[in-house]
Amino acid sequence: MPLKLKDIAKALGLSVTTISKVINNYPDISQTTKKKVLEYVKQNKYKPNLQASFLRTNESKLVGIILPSLNHYFFNSVLEGLVDNAMKNNYMVIVLQSNEKYKKEKKLVEQLLNLNVDGIFITVSQETRNFDHLFEIQKNNKTLILFDKIEKSINCSKVIINDKQAAFIATEHLIKRGCKKILHFRGGLLPQISIDRFLGYRSALEHYKIPYDPKRVFICENGNDDEGYLNAKKVIEEGIEFDGLFAISDLIALGAIRYFNKKNISIPDQVAVVGFSNWKVSKLTTPTLTTINQPGKLMGEKMFDLFLKGFKANKNKEKINFETIIIPSNLIVRNSS
Amino acid sequence: MPLKLKDIAKALGLSVTTISKVINNYPDISQTTKKKVLEYVKQNKYKPNLQASFLRTNESKLVGIILPSLNHYFFNSVLEGLVDNAMKNNYMVIVLQSNEKYKKEKKLVEQLLNLNVDGIFITVSQETRNFDHLFEIQKNNKTLILFDKIEKSINCSKVIINDKQAAFIATEHLIKRGCKKILHFRGGLLPQISIDRFLGYRSALEHYKIPYDPKRVFICENGNDDEGYLNAKKVIEEGIEFDGLFAISDLIALGAIRYFNKKNISIPDQVAVVGFSNWKVSKLTTPTLTTINQPGKLMGEKMFDLFLKGFKANKNKEKINFETIIIPSNLIVRNSS
Repeated sequence: MPLKLKDIAKALGLSVTTISKVINNYPDISQTTKKKVLEYVKQNKYKPNLQASFLRTNESKLVGIILPSLNHYFFNSVLEGLVDNAMKNNYMVIVLQSNEKYKKEKKLVEQLLNLNVDGIFITVSQETRNFDHLFEIQKNNKTLILFDKIEKSINCSKVIINDKQAAFIATEHLIKRGCKKILHFRGGLLPQISIDRFLGYRSALEHYKIPYDPKRVFICENGNDDEGYLNAKKVIEEGIEFDGLFAISDLIALGAIRYFNKKNISIPDQVAVVGFSNWKVSKLTTPTLTTINQPGKLMGEKMFDLFLKGFKANKNKEKINFETIIIPSNLIVRNSS
Repeated sequence: MPLKLKDIAKALGLSVTTISKVINNYPDISQTTKKKVLEYVKQNKYKPNLQASFLRTNESKLVGIILPSLNHYFFNSVLEGLVDNAMKNNYMVIVLQSNEKYKKEKKLVEQLLNLNVDGIFITVSQETRNFDHLFEIQKNNKTLILFDKIEKSINCSKVIINDKQAAFIATEHLIKRGCKKILHFRGGLLPQISIDRFLGYRSALEHYKIPYDPKRVFICENGNDDEGYLNAKKVIEEGIEFDGLFAISDLIALGAIRYFNKKNISIPDQVAVVGFSNWKVSKLTTPTLTTINQPGKLMGEKMFDLFLKGFKANKNKEKINFETIIIPSNLIVRNSS
């Protein structure tokens, strides 16, 4: 059993209060007593009970992150950056997954608040339309950081990728390569990132005076590679003309490429393809995939920086200046375009 | 500020002890008082302070997992399974990464113990030779579960993949496809998984009476795809004959394939390739990759089951029967072989 304050008190013939005062560095203790206690503590490898100390300071040095999925390259990079930065600052990170479910997200927030974490990082689930549970975090005086899929109406610090601009760059690249009939395999109709990437695609077409044709836009609801494959099949079967494809994710782009390869449609000659995310896999495929690099690790690091700022301001009862950091993404050109 | 016991006591004109007794369901309280307190608690959304409750019960409902890296498909699957199962049981998981460093691993164990977690899951780092910090977990009466890279001398429950057998199956598959000059791109000399996979390779050769040639074994220390690429280059430059390759990981196999593709060496006709891990990517590459499937998610789930068993036995002061669960892996045959 670990050594407790009362054990030390008994061993040294002192009161628990005295031992506690020494350990917590109170001034009203004689140097002799202080030395005696500290030596005993050191020799006997006393470890302060952190939970007891949390009760005193109301700081748990714990933060929680709620991710939609734990098996997703981009979110894993975010997690890596967050955990790295948290560890440097002696914080620990509790990881939870919402599986894109609103009810689960709400319950997890409650659990994290019950645990008295100092801060919560959330990318809101695809189902979430009610944000009371997020306001609750702030009512509980905890630091909330939103990232990736954010909710604009909530007044807190945020870290996002400029999806619209990134999608513009991806589409512009295809246009500059000579493509005029560019397909877009988009995500669902509701998630902001899916909307923004679609808007970036449209605005690049507009900018370069290429007519927008809704027949060239296909919805991929689940985001798996089979959807890319099946939509590519649909394009061919419906006889839609195309010379380029901008896909909302690398996985969907690779699914489409799988079908094009099968049908001996030459990439990039007959169709140039651009993905999104720069998954590790995208430089290993044949052809290697042109894609948008989203620096997830950097995002995770910045998220923790914003938490620390907010937490300190909150603790010192200073006014908090909420910030939104936009992480720049860049195009990586490979053989598919 | 959250409601405290003393606030409730004040509001109802009762003592803190009475309120505490009601909340903790002590018997010696009148039904009238009980009802009064519980109604007030419900109306005012009182949340028990979990840290205070941890101090009482010595259960934190927190567990910690130390992974070498957070950006690694297999470990992310393990994490997913663990977090899923933990959440079902109302536990939360703290995630830490050792970056394969012994000192870091040791420090993280100390931090988790200070936090009073109920259990710790570790896959030991490549550098770790001294295991005192792991024994320390058990001395502190916490449940230790080792997985993947384990240390045999420690008496605790373990979850592992039978790497030797899986490597045997992978090599056997190449032999049955007619390969006689099989390269092995192995990992470093020390990690047990690297040794076991190498032993599986050798024992398959022996079993099928194919002479072992150390010239055909190449060490990939870091495990990235460039090592696969560079070693494939070395094989060609050194004029070593080959017709098969068993690589210790999909990433290394894909690096080698990248070089073979570049040199127009036909897969699987001139060289059949088998990887290890069944990364998501391995079914998206050209050619798709034959590989060993390691069910990481199942591993994570089983790890939590073993923790719960150990923790309960420990709590009830029952004898603990340590178990080692071996997760079966299987060969997935695709176009590279």
